[in-house]
Amino acid sequence: MLVVKKFGGSSVANAERVMNVARIVTDTYREGHDVVVVVSAQGDTTDDLIEKAKEINPKGSKREMDMLLAAGEQISIALLAMAIENMGFPVISLLGWQAGFQTNSTYSSARIKRVNPERIRAALDKRKIVVVAGFQGLNRYEDVTTLGRGGSDTSAVAIAAAMHADLCQIYTDVEGVYTADPRKVPDARKLQEITYDEMLELATLGAQVLNNRSVEMAKKYGVELEVLSSMKAVPGTKVKEVAKMEEMLIKGVAKDTNVARVMIVGLPDEPGIAFKIFSRVAKAHINVDIILQSVGRDGTKDITFTVPQDKGDEAVAALQEYCDMVGAKSLSYDTSVAKVSVVGAGMETHEGTASLMFEALAAANVNIQMISTSEIKVSVLIAAEDADRAVSAVHKAFFEA
Amino acid sequence: MLVVKKFGGSSVANAERVMNVARIVTDTYREGHDVVVVVSAQGDTTDDLIEKAKEINPKGSKREMDMLLAAGEQISIALLAMAIENMGFPVISLLGWQAGFQTNSTYSSARIKRVNPERIRAALDKRKIVVVAGFQGLNRYEDVTTLGRGGSDTSAVAIAAAMHADLCQIYTDVEGVYTADPRKVPDARKLQEITYDEMLELATLGAQVLNNRSVEMAKKYGVELEVLSSMKAVPGTKVKEVAKMEEMLIKGVAKDTNVARVMIVGLPDEPGIAFKIFSRVAKAHINVDIILQSVGRDGTKDITFTVPQDKGDEAVAALQEYCDMVGAKSLSYDTSVAKVSVVGAGMETHEGTASLMFEALAAANVNIQMISTSEIKVSVLIAAEDADRAVSAVHKAFFEA
Repeated sequence: MLVVKKFGGSSVANAERVMNVARIVTDTYREGHDVVVVVSAQGDTTDDLIEKAKEINPKGSKREMDMLLAAGEQISIALLAMAIENMGFPVISLLGWQAGFQTNSTYSSARIKRVNPERIRAALDKRKIVVVAGFQGLNRYEDVTTLGRGGSDTSAVAIAAAMHADLCQIYTDVEGVYTADPRKVPDARKLQEITYDEMLELATLGAQVLNNRSVEMAKKYGVELEVLSSMKAVPGTKVKEVAKMEEMLIKGVAKDTNVARVMIVGLPDEPGIAFKIFSRVAKAHINVDIILQSVGRDGTKDITFTVPQDKGDEAVAALQEYCDMVGAKSLSYDTSVAKVSVVGAGMETHEGTASLMFEALAAANVNIQMISTSEIKVSVLIAAEDADRAVSAVHKAFFEA
Repeated sequence: MLVVKKFGGSSVANAERVMNVARIVTDTYREGHDVVVVVSAQGDTTDDLIEKAKEINPKGSKREMDMLLAAGEQISIALLAMAIENMGFPVISLLGWQAGFQTNSTYSSARIKRVNPERIRAALDKRKIVVVAGFQGLNRYEDVTTLGRGGSDTSAVAIAAAMHADLCQIYTDVEGVYTADPRKVPDARKLQEITYDEMLELATLGAQVLNNRSVEMAKKYGVELEVLSSMKAVPGTKVKEVAKMEEMLIKGVAKDTNVARVMIVGLPDEPGIAFKIFSRVAKAHINVDIILQSVGRDGTKDITFTVPQDKGDEAVAALQEYCDMVGAKSLSYDTSVAKVSVVGAGMETHEGTASLMFEALAAANVNIQMISTSEIKVSVLIAAEDADRAVSAVHKAFFEA
């Protein structure tokens, strides 16, 4: 069996943890499996390097920033390889480019174009454990690129896809995917299995277990994922195409506070207004999530939509000129909001998921500002201060009934 | 004019110093020159990385150690490039392999096989300042290698040689090459020029201004070097094939305390003994410097020679069996010695250099244990505790007469 294992920065933060990872890896190798390990930079290394750069140039080019940050994983792969050597196992570390990661040239958030796993394969053939630097690759100009935050998950899935690995294990500081954040909701349950689509909704909605791009890639190439703990040797949560029905209507309740609500009041009620608004937002490379349009009694209309919190300024800037031109009454944004969602493939066949959620929120006295639904989720926008209370109330309604 | 500039770890130790280097570099660029800058890892980075590795595995493989250490220069080139960007100049940083450094596979002390400066040339053609990671390269297996301590000097000279640079400037924390260590001998004078051969003797003898390999390479390819200060903008010392005669008999007085004296007493007085001794030492990859052989009155002979201080143990280990076999009376080594030398191409044509040195040592009451001479130097082995006093006395005799 070929297993790809990925460990994040906190799993390799110091000598002790690096040795712990070496034990997990060599245990699997000893069982006779081929093992490829993808690691991130140690603990705060990336932040420390960013800090160093800012001291010298607050606006250094992204190319040089990628050159700088890629040093972080270089350190961690060498240290992990030495820890594995110390336990007496054959091992080799490979940088992103040595492992065959070819990316486009969008420095700081490059996309993997393909993985050419020749060197990985050659090393596995020699029965070596292969330690690969996550988060980094090489573009067509032979410049070092990075995949952006969370990119190591994607690196691991990309290797698993390119090599048709049997399993891609993502080690984190939680034991798996839960029905809600276990630090906030004590009754949250760990899921045995979840589908790619459910996981995607949960990741997008701020569950922060897996990087979104990595789940998309796993779905596309049919890579079976497992989310599990690097500290506790218990089974995690499997992410796959079809998950076992666990007699649960929904899989989880997620909270996302990285949201800003943009409001345009008093737009003329004419055709094509929405198109003009959202094409301007799209041109500014801002993702829009929930959209609400309402017609007022005075014959004008209001448009409200949500964007990532740090894009509120940019969204307003992109729309200011247009709103002035058409004589909108006001254009503003508000960051004191949060999105709470329930996710589950099962809700397609069950009516009443939304109403059960709304009932729970009403009982908890949480006011709903906006609503958005898809086949496998229901999201509501509420005041940020109500978010934790809303998650608990909704979780209780679905899982503790 | 194409100028290669090299800055060591202390010259880029923090943000302020990185910005200072950026100023020096851009000043030269502004004068219309093409500039390639070679930098080492910041300050203690290399030592810190070694420390991290030791915590995990005191005997990590050299391959992984090179992978680890190469991250150090990666950080410094990115930071320096960002500092130059911040001053508004076009710049690009390149890792050893990107700059075309091909080495052999002796990890930790790789030799440069060739430099393929295509990318450097392309960047210079676009009028960019090119910042190159010193100390590192790539072997034929596409693995990262390092050149060993002081290797960044060699990197700079190799680029200068490959690109036929007009000048290779090595920036240090001293203002140039002195007639003696200026921290120990207040009257030491800075030299305007010195020949490669003289510099080689001084480097070998512990003057610690330039890495030896870099001077050898500069001599071989006729690269004109300049040693100068990164803190004070004054002319340094030029190192070239023929140096101006500055009416000095010698160029400098150097002290080397990295010496151990190995003594074998009571060897049989037969032909071939010396060959058998030194072939064993050579097989153990230990460099021998001064050799003294003497025949005792009892028909046995003694052999004494010097090796680098940390090789004393190994030298004795390499000889123990043989010495036992031939019945030598004793085999031991002593590290409380130092080598003091005078160096200068001028002494070839002057008799009396050695006698002037011996006279000065005698007047200072310094006992000479061993003597070695070449065309351009005279070295004596003395007690380590006498070394500083000996240097002062000899320097006074030659320069303050």
